[in-house]
Amino acid sequence: MSLDNLSQNKVFGGWHKQYTHRSSSLNCQMRFAVYLPSSASASNKVPALYWLSGLTCSDENFMHKAGAFRVAEALGIALIAPDTSPRGDDVADDDNYDLGKGAGFYLNATQAPWDKHYRMYDYIVEELPELIEAHFPVSSLKSISGHSMGGHGALTIGLKNADKYCSISAFSPISHPMVCPWGQKAFQAYLGNNKEDWRQYDACELLRQGQASLPMLVDQGDADNFLAEQLHPEALQAAAALHDSALELRMQPGYDHSYYFIASFIEDHLRFHARYLLTGRN
Amino acid sequence: MSLDNLSQNKVFGGWHKQYTHRSSSLNCQMRFAVYLPSSASASNKVPALYWLSGLTCSDENFMHKAGAFRVAEALGIALIAPDTSPRGDDVADDDNYDLGKGAGFYLNATQAPWDKHYRMYDYIVEELPELIEAHFPVSSLKSISGHSMGGHGALTIGLKNADKYCSISAFSPISHPMVCPWGQKAFQAYLGNNKEDWRQYDACELLRQGQASLPMLVDQGDADNFLAEQLHPEALQAAAALHDSALELRMQPGYDHSYYFIASFIEDHLRFHARYLLTGRN
Repeated sequence: MSLDNLSQNKVFGGWHKQYTHRSSSLNCQMRFAVYLPSSASASNKVPALYWLSGLTCSDENFMHKAGAFRVAEALGIALIAPDTSPRGDDVADDDNYDLGKGAGFYLNATQAPWDKHYRMYDYIVEELPELIEAHFPVSSLKSISGHSMGGHGALTIGLKNADKYCSISAFSPISHPMVCPWGQKAFQAYLGNNKEDWRQYDACELLRQGQASLPMLVDQGDADNFLAEQLHPEALQAAAALHDSALELRMQPGYDHSYYFIASFIEDHLRFHARYLLTGRN
Repeated sequence: MSLDNLSQNKVFGGWHKQYTHRSSSLNCQMRFAVYLPSSASASNKVPALYWLSGLTCSDENFMHKAGAFRVAEALGIALIAPDTSPRGDDVADDDNYDLGKGAGFYLNATQAPWDKHYRMYDYIVEELPELIEAHFPVSSLKSISGHSMGGHGALTIGLKNADKYCSISAFSPISHPMVCPWGQKAFQAYLGNNKEDWRQYDACELLRQGQASLPMLVDQGDADNFLAEQLHPEALQAAAALHDSALELRMQPGYDHSYYFIASFIEDHLRFHARYLLTGRN
């Protein structure tokens, strides 16, 4: 498990750093970015928020545009931003932005040609945290958040691993991928035609099954171009209500699907996660 | 003076908007971006901070990466981000990043082929503020800031127009372009071989001449790769001392030339400008 450092930038007193490493789950070279607040040290391991990005993104979009460092530094929380799919010349791809590279959907593909590399679920849940906790002054306390496809990833990964995460949040998540074009296209390609296999990666289905719940905060802009066709926050709310899952869904008037929206409310999300991350600090 | 709106995003309660327009000073179509805080209205015109970007940038770099909206909204200050050069297929260019498109150096070129379009000085000082004040709820109170080449632009434009601006700030400015490779290359191409013609666009020369001074705040990272060869903040400080010009130069340990540095200190700059912009509000 060796890491190569690609870049480092001091920001708000802490450090933003990019690394590459050989991923065993994805069977390719991967890049990720971390933000370490200035308080992080071997004797003061800090909790971490994992951020899962949306379609077409890499580790850079969140780090460039979300404006999360100031509050992460103030709270003493590390930020971890992985890439959104396996990468490399031998990795299967598609001509469209919503399948293949940049569109891993945070699942383990079972269908050829995708099954050779597309195992983002295992990468996010197992391999990356192990790597992070081995190489950085970061504790095992973690929460998970994300945007759009990454909001889907945060919700499904968090709901399926309530023992591993302290809290979940999302911006504009693909809440019910089984019934929207982005989700159906990806699930059919990666998982095949049997919709029973899709349920494990659908946040609404997981909530309906009454998965052990974590505190969840979801922000959704009502001027988001993708809202009606792709996102379905109302289905998420209905599914959460079935078992009284702890979901706070906030509709934000006038906001769209962009990082301008994320930047406007990322402080709320960091402070939400801090309530759960900082109480049981190890 | 008509404007075409290209995009709009709600952010921190205010609005980021991009526009194109035909520029008479630059003789081409130009794009710029504005941030209007929620308090701006016809009956409450707000002061503005003009931001001049560095080499290779457009109006987008600052708006995407600086994280300035939160504080601009809190203070009630508009942000105006122009492009860094004339644009278009018929605009002269150079193969390198430090001359031609993306590298206008905020001056009026006198040499062919540059003199046909490269009049960024007139654009920033005259045309753009006139356009902004005619089309947006923005008062005539303005300050100016920028990064690297744009820090050079902010310092020189502010020093030459103390009647038009309330305060000046810069991150990592090209403080003494007459003696650094970036500046010498640009000035020779745009202004010709007579170095007397260069002095009017060199912040150190302007300070030595004892131009009417404005409050100035400059931040410079000491881990900036361009510091020794291109930036010369020590020359700026020495020149300011000659006539007791009001310069605060802050060396920031560990910070580099990137927007991570700008994001870390943009709040200080906004609050610095607010001290001068908000006292004589019209």
